[in-house]
Amino acid sequence: MDIKTYLKERKTLVDSFLESYFSSPLTPKTLNDSMVYSLSAGGKRIRPVLCLAAYEACGGKAEDIIPYASSLEFIHTYSLIHDDLPAMDNDDLRRGKPTNHKVFGEGMAILAGDGLLTEAFYMLSNNRQSSSIQPAAILKVIREIAMASGIHGMVGGQAQDLLSEDAEPDEETLAFIHRHKTAALITASVRSGGLLAGCGDEQIFRLTSYGENIGLAFQVIDDILDVEGETEVLGKPKGSDEKKKKMTYPKLYGIERSKEKAKELIDGAIEALDVFDEKAEPLRAIARYMLERKS
Amino acid sequence: MDIKTYLKERKTLVDSFLESYFSSPLTPKTLNDSMVYSLSAGGKRIRPVLCLAAYEACGGKAEDIIPYASSLEFIHTYSLIHDDLPAMDNDDLRRGKPTNHKVFGEGMAILAGDGLLTEAFYMLSNNRQSSSIQPAAILKVIREIAMASGIHGMVGGQAQDLLSEDAEPDEETLAFIHRHKTAALITASVRSGGLLAGCGDEQIFRLTSYGENIGLAFQVIDDILDVEGETEVLGKPKGSDEKKKKMTYPKLYGIERSKEKAKELIDGAIEALDVFDEKAEPLRAIARYMLERKS
Repeated sequence: MDIKTYLKERKTLVDSFLESYFSSPLTPKTLNDSMVYSLSAGGKRIRPVLCLAAYEACGGKAEDIIPYASSLEFIHTYSLIHDDLPAMDNDDLRRGKPTNHKVFGEGMAILAGDGLLTEAFYMLSNNRQSSSIQPAAILKVIREIAMASGIHGMVGGQAQDLLSEDAEPDEETLAFIHRHKTAALITASVRSGGLLAGCGDEQIFRLTSYGENIGLAFQVIDDILDVEGETEVLGKPKGSDEKKKKMTYPKLYGIERSKEKAKELIDGAIEALDVFDEKAEPLRAIARYMLERKS
Repeated sequence: MDIKTYLKERKTLVDSFLESYFSSPLTPKTLNDSMVYSLSAGGKRIRPVLCLAAYEACGGKAEDIIPYASSLEFIHTYSLIHDDLPAMDNDDLRRGKPTNHKVFGEGMAILAGDGLLTEAFYMLSNNRQSSSIQPAAILKVIREIAMASGIHGMVGGQAQDLLSEDAEPDEETLAFIHRHKTAALITASVRSGGLLAGCGDEQIFRLTSYGENIGLAFQVIDDILDVEGETEVLGKPKGSDEKKKKMTYPKLYGIERSKEKAKELIDGAIEALDVFDEKAEPLRAIARYMLERKS
């Protein structure tokens, strides 16, 4: 299979949905513009695509769950807007463009984030759009995503990250931050696809293991790119983690060991899928592709 | 019926649940402390109590839906934390105590708000705790609460409020802000009680009308208290709306007309309940009680 074509097609499904979502005017318009600005800032839609790929691995048809998958991009985008705020990471640039608060001001950026987060749960619960999924399955997915995004997941990881900025790197803390801040929502994206498809326990267990492995690999590779990548490709100045005294894998283990670590995690992710047939090929290809990414 | 006893008993049910919710340690502890600080800052729990009272009006037993009702307090508390931030209303005092960001810093306050908002949806979807409610009814409630809290409700109202701070008061804008910022979540609280009880369409319609009326009355009375109340009783300096050039009812209509308006709204709320029997007496008593409140 051609993974680039697969990713492009699935990304297009999500992009079209996101574009149409805010096409009718919302009051106040500035709030609308602020959310759309960050949603359309060129994200790779990796979380929705993982959800779709997991749904397909379990025999589903991607087109049937676009709103559910897209809700993950709302949550991811909200987390970027809030993370970039002066009181948090204080970033001026995101994906090569000024960050949300630089354009719309801090107050509106906080509200755009709050709005996207809340709208994700509205989309998930608004099951009038795809009645083929049972309410009990949707409830499980909401629970899954809320758990991964909140205090036991992303918010918890970001809080620990904020508290650790000037501390000496420590293996346990680093693992906690990355598992919560990044891997939790990636794992939930994969699991949600499985839950929406009504996958059995063994398959959900394997999807979880796949998600945890690529989720951690994603962060390790991000850290490596911050050291080795190019500003133009990254969309943010390289070395920004170092400047902010962030704990990273390269800082803790060195670049070479970090690269080995990423490779091991990707191998583990692919191995976890050995109970799936060829319908899981996109999931396997995504894992392999992650090792090659440059931004 | 004795409304003060009723309110106290229902508030105790909610308070006990909220207290036990964060009793096991969460990492990082500062995030935990920040959320608990604002949750336990002496709120009246009016939204959860309205949800319980509506559930009881439809024949339910308050004890059966405590987690669902309490989720409304998580959302209300998150909105207060974010509203108080320097980039928003920039308030140092809330219910007589330093605001969250004054104690925990802006970054942690933003995260505490994000955490409470997300945890509300976790609690709502975690239906293992009360299996008597059908998943389809819970989904309706999540949709209801997400709609009222998000860009079509509270977040939209707060955004408009932020954009209007230095503008001249205008009736339409004032109505938009209050309907979205305050009345939407109060209406959703009442409706959610009815939806959880499986009320019929006519009853839900009446509960909606009740909610809209008391929701708007709540805000009108808040505005009046900001002019006439005492700092010690309010827990915040009186006249703070005036200082921030906020649009308010007294500013637009004068104090006397605002008081009449509040009375009309309360009368309308009680009238809407005329299809209910004596089980709706707490809802009626709450409406009457609102006219008497001093803080």
